[in-house]
Amino acid sequence: MMYLDNSATTKPFPEVLQSFMKVANDYFGNPSSLHGLGMQAERLLTQAREQIARLLEVKPTEVIFTSGGTEGNNLAIKGVAWQHQQRGRHMITTAIEHPSVTEACKQLEQLGFQVTYVPVDERGIVSPTHIEQALRDDTILVSVMHVNNEVGSIQPIEQIGMLLKKYPKVLFHVDGVQGAAKVPLHLKRANVDLYTISAHKFHGLKGAGVLYVREGVRLSPLLSGGAQEMQLRSGTENVAAIVAMAKALRLSVEKYHESSARLGEMKRALIERLQAIEGIVVHTPFEQSAPHIIHFSLEGVKSEAFVHELEKQHVYVSTTSACSSRKKAPSKTLLAMGVEKMRAERSIRISLSYEQQMEHIPIIVEAIERAYERLKIVARGTK
Amino acid sequence: MMYLDNSATTKPFPEVLQSFMKVANDYFGNPSSLHGLGMQAERLLTQAREQIARLLEVKPTEVIFTSGGTEGNNLAIKGVAWQHQQRGRHMITTAIEHPSVTEACKQLEQLGFQVTYVPVDERGIVSPTHIEQALRDDTILVSVMHVNNEVGSIQPIEQIGMLLKKYPKVLFHVDGVQGAAKVPLHLKRANVDLYTISAHKFHGLKGAGVLYVREGVRLSPLLSGGAQEMQLRSGTENVAAIVAMAKALRLSVEKYHESSARLGEMKRALIERLQAIEGIVVHTPFEQSAPHIIHFSLEGVKSEAFVHELEKQHVYVSTTSACSSRKKAPSKTLLAMGVEKMRAERSIRISLSYEQQMEHIPIIVEAIERAYERLKIVARGTK
Ligand SMILES: Cc1ncc(COP(=O)(O)O)c(C=O)c1O
Ligand SMILES: Cc1ncc(COP(=O)(O)O)c(C=O)c1O
Repeated sequence: MMYLDNSATTKPFPEVLQSFMKVANDYFGNPSSLHGLGMQAERLLTQAREQIARLLEVKPTEVIFTSGGTEGNNLAIKGVAWQHQQRGRHMITTAIEHPSVTEACKQLEQLGFQVTYVPVDERGIVSPTHIEQALRDDTILVSVMHVNNEVGSIQPIEQIGMLLKKYPKVLFHVDGVQGAAKVPLHLKRANVDLYTISAHKFHGLKGAGVLYVREGVRLSPLLSGGAQEMQLRSGTENVAAIVAMAKALRLSVEKYHESSARLGEMKRALIERLQAIEGIVVHTPFEQSAPHIIHFSLEGVKSEAFVHELEKQHVYVSTTSACSSRKKAPSKTLLAMGVEKMRAERSIRISLSYEQQMEHIPIIVEAIERAYERLKIVARGTK
Repeated sequence: MMYLDNSATTKPFPEVLQSFMKVANDYFGNPSSLHGLGMQAERLLTQAREQIARLLEVKPTEVIFTSGGTEGNNLAIKGVAWQHQQRGRHMITTAIEHPSVTEACKQLEQLGFQVTYVPVDERGIVSPTHIEQALRDDTILVSVMHVNNEVGSIQPIEQIGMLLKKYPKVLFHVDGVQGAAKVPLHLKRANVDLYTISAHKFHGLKGAGVLYVREGVRLSPLLSGGAQEMQLRSGTENVAAIVAMAKALRLSVEKYHESSARLGEMKRALIERLQAIEGIVVHTPFEQSAPHIIHFSLEGVKSEAFVHELEKQHVYVSTTSACSSRKKAPSKTLLAMGVEKMRAERSIRISLSYEQQMEHIPIIVEAIERAYERLKIVARGTK
């Protein structure tokens, strides 16, 4: 099996599963309990927080544990909205964000907020100048993703962070779910106030994530209650999944550091070989894109059928993002890049992991060619 | 070790951990992915939903998976608030709810909603009449817990549900975190619209829960995004923890059904034996209380010291609720019951599981007596 849908979710590292089991079974106490079992759990939580802080180069008190990327994004956006609405009710984001950003914004629009969706260029990259032009006196938040989940384009986070230094009242949120551990970003240097990560995208477990909240940034909690996580996220902590996430992040940072150059080469080789196939257009930009995502479209065949045809050869890929694929919606990122609807509806995303090697390229390309040929024959037959 | 802090969290069943591991490792696909790995994960999710629906005697489409009790309560309360604010901005709850209810209400109060906190009697039980008297034309929600997490009192959910039939526009939320699998409640017959449960309170894993949302009830989502969970709760589903939760619920319903009479007997025996100790007052009502919670206070010794003293005898208990215990706040439920502050600050909660047996009673009582004696000597010495 060749699993090439790592942007949808990743297979957990075996060590991560072991950590989870150990903690869930032996240290099941509630970290808020006063007795020893509670204290053990709390210690594990503290260690995980410190380890993650070290890996993200932030302070432990800036690490807020969440249930995943969707919660992190919603907490950042709605948390800023409710906390800072007296100062203004305008937000800026881009046309290519994940639904957990876009839909949070849409909900706020219904509640009286205004949102500017800044367009992207044909590579799927937003311009810092356009972000700056969208700023208003009542802007409270700019939210721009780190790595686009559909085409892999890397957004100019550092430049946007720099320009926002001139606007100290505007908070800067970055959805780092596809970038974390894969594409370097120094949160402090890039002047990021809020950064979302999700464990299951880097070989951790579903149900755990982090929202980095820069010291001094105030948020209204989404989940209020027992006041866990510096009062920003209440609820009994998912200690086992959090410990497992700390391990997954450390291992991923190592593995992707080692394999980043190779994955980049693989991406370029795949882009070149796929471009050469008649009827295929590659939409992932050659430069300024993450090493693990390659997005292309196929003329004349339905992308869902293509996913299934490839699967017959034990190659697992995706049409657009996982959550959009069920709705059979065209890729929103491609549309924003100016790709025509017909193509945007026929697109396929390959997302690699550290496990892929150069010698997999011919296998992948041949599987794609074969599947494409077969489906074209079927398509011709039904005409 | 005698772990008597099961209201804070429970030890997962071994079978639950096994299910988790199997799913997290072998069926790690994203349920939204179109390929076979995604479909397998989706099938597991569907099966878990059906199983839980059967156990709760509701429809599978009424089962919304969440990250736990705090999220379920926040989703119910804020979800109703934002969805139905045009109809009214008044809510009713009780003086003894868990902070995940109370703090959600407080947040809404700051955003222009009004909340009535109905008092309870000296047993820690709210009166349906008082709830009815608090109803106003602009009331959109009544939120009453099933079993109180501090003293174990069972609230008259059926009666409140019945009276609310006359007010079809008022939604009825029940925080069932301490009741689920332990104290029977027929959600449909009790006219409950929203019911919160949390897996780690019934030997499942932290990080998973359910909000039952009766068909036809509309909520504004807290976590918006990829539109999972009938659009009420976006985010990649925590499939492994959800499958594990379905198993935990099934096993718990069985085990607590078997042990409920025994636990009730144990509770009564413990209440009687503890009452007999000079300086101890039991606050858990003899009748109309869950079989697994016994709450008492000790004259003259600090409850935190008592927890640690008992721990030396390998007996693990709690002061008030886990999340309040860290803040060293007096038990809010006891205060609401009219217990004087001095006593409310010196209170101890024992919470049993299906594992406890009648023969444990003398061990527990003697450990308590011994710890109390020792601390009284210390207290006298420092005078
Ligand atoms: C860019 C991006 N943001 C947010 C999310 C949501 O993360 P999660 O699935 O952990 O809720 C995803 C993945 O689905 C994503 O790709
Ligand atoms: C009555 C009650 N409601 C809600 C909760 C919150 O549940 P969770 O810890 O799963 O967030 C708890 C437990 O802490 C509780 O006892």
